Amino acid sequence: MIRFAAITSALVLAIGIGAASADDEGAIKHRQAVMKAVGGNMGAMVAILKGQVGFMEDMPLHARAMNELAQISAKVFPEGSDFGETDALEAIWEKPEDFKKAVQAFQVAAGALNKVAGSGDRGAIGNLGKSCKGCHDDFRKKN
Amino acid sequence: MIRFAAITSALVLAIGIGAASADDEGAIKHRQAVMKAVGGNMGAMVAILKGQVGFMEDMPLHARAMNELAQISAKVFPEGSDFGETDALEAIWEKPEDFKKAVQAFQVAAGALNKVAGSGDRGAIGNLGKSCKGCHDDFRKKN
Repeated sequence: MIRFAAITSALVLAIGIGAASADDEGAIKHRQAVMKAVGGNMGAMVAILKGQVGFMEDMPLHARAMNELAQISAKVFPEGSDFGETDALEAIWEKPEDFKKAVQAFQVAAGALNKVAGSGDRGAIGNLGKSCKGCHDDFRKKN
Repeated sequence: MIRFAAITSALVLAIGIGAASADDEGAIKHRQAVMKAVGGNMGAMVAILKGQVGFMEDMPLHARAMNELAQISAKVFPEGSDFGETDALEAIWEKPEDFKKAVQAFQVAAGALNKVAGSGDRGAIGNLGKSCKGCHDDFRKKN
């Protein structure tokens, strides 16, 4: 049985089922970097709107970055990037239509914020936050 | 002695020496969010230039964000934001001229990359990486 298991494991590795390839790991690292940029801009905007820092003039900068990151966010979940060190759930690839809707909600909210960011509109940032949560609730592993 | 220590502690807290105020903590959170955005964009560009993902078309987006974040990076180290949960070293405020030079190196490198990002210039991203390291070596706690 052990020998059979070993051979099976070798086969699985050889044909790549269940194993993250170098490219898949790269895709995961890239996705995490993009999401880190998303989180950083979000955190900065929240700190500004909470009045923790007085940099309201930076809101458009962060909102523009967020909008651009939202536009590229769909493509950072390629097929095959579901193995390895990732919090991305299988639901992303199992329910592509639902995931697409969640990403679109993010893009719409980021676009709307980008249009009014200079005004410090709290509703717009609230909607953006909801779109983050919506996607994370259904498609990201709970920490 | 214990009583004296307790009173001293209370006094120190009351006059704010050695204690992070709510605003200082907010400034630290904001700084960490800005640096998270910097790190995220850097990570995404490195993954692209390493060929881990084929999104060369995103280089200008990340380089522009990085350039804008570099421009605001000096002001995210206000006096008083050296207490609390931060990896920022006292050297930032003790050697302001040296720190200013390190930040300017970051700004110059980010500006230069922003001009050539579409070309995937590896020299420019290398210089940007060096400017990150230069500042982190001298002004950030080692992890």
